[in-house]
Amino acid sequence: MTGESPDVLAREVLERCRAAGVRLALVEACTGGLLCARLTDVPGASAVVERGFVPYSHESKVEQLGVPLELLQAHGSVSVEAAEALARGALERSRADWAVAETGIAGPGGGTPQKPVGLAFIAVLRRGEQATVERHVFTGERAGIRRAVAERALALLLEQLGTAS
Amino acid sequence: MTGESPDVLAREVLERCRAAGVRLALVEACTGGLLCARLTDVPGASAVVERGFVPYSHESKVEQLGVPLELLQAHGSVSVEAAEALARGALERSRADWAVAETGIAGPGGGTPQKPVGLAFIAVLRRGEQATVERHVFTGERAGIRRAVAERALALLLEQLGTAS
Repeated sequence: MTGESPDVLAREVLERCRAAGVRLALVEACTGGLLCARLTDVPGASAVVERGFVPYSHESKVEQLGVPLELLQAHGSVSVEAAEALARGALERSRADWAVAETGIAGPGGGTPQKPVGLAFIAVLRRGEQATVERHVFTGERAGIRRAVAERALALLLEQLGTAS
Repeated sequence: MTGESPDVLAREVLERCRAAGVRLALVEACTGGLLCARLTDVPGASAVVERGFVPYSHESKVEQLGVPLELLQAHGSVSVEAAEALARGALERSRADWAVAETGIAGPGGGTPQKPVGLAFIAVLRRGEQATVERHVFTGERAGIRRAVAERALALLLEQLGTAS
């Protein structure tokens, strides 16, 4: 999604944020930079993207975003609780107004019957409000799952921005 | 570079790191997630990519990576000094063995006669050693400049890994 064809969704998110004076923090435990790359590929993204985190290791979720270790032990790093905690941590550790955080199992390894490959949680959180968290199970291969998570994260953010007062 | 065609360079970096037991921290002040996305698109990347930082705002370079504000004021955020400080900060704030950090002006705005669009600094730093920093001026449009910075960052890392004892 980076480069040649105009990324309509990323541009729409940036335009909506710029108009509302919103700055974003992104946390990509699943997509590993893809979401941020899509946004920052658009000229002028620096007015909106405040910072991004790629907490790929278990320790980095605790150290970079302040997710409680007990939360990860109790629910796992791919859980609704972890997604929300990552988003909350991003707002506490940035100057952003909104945070988007996702965590998931892109595969091909790492899946279990309870948590299959393709499982992902996406959290959108506005400072001072409650998080919206979605659970998805995307199908396909690693690259497709990652693209689907990034795509849905942008769409969910756009929806939430649209309903915000 | 994400998705369809196999990313030979990213795979080579990951293979080399995995064989040597090396874990990486990535700092993308210029490419904004693209470098991390290329690496994490490869299955098994989580054994190598420890965490990533996208310090897109001025403040985030200080807060996320501990770059001294005075350094940014004296040399600017696109400078050899900033690139090295970002890499050093990444090692201090991660469990990685090696850090790759880049900072640059992807355009189309933001260029000056002294620091034109396409200027980028790429630092590679192994824990306990001196950083290697390269200065480049890439030509083309935003997407092409970002791709060139990510490509050269991977290549420089591979070279440095190759010469490491």
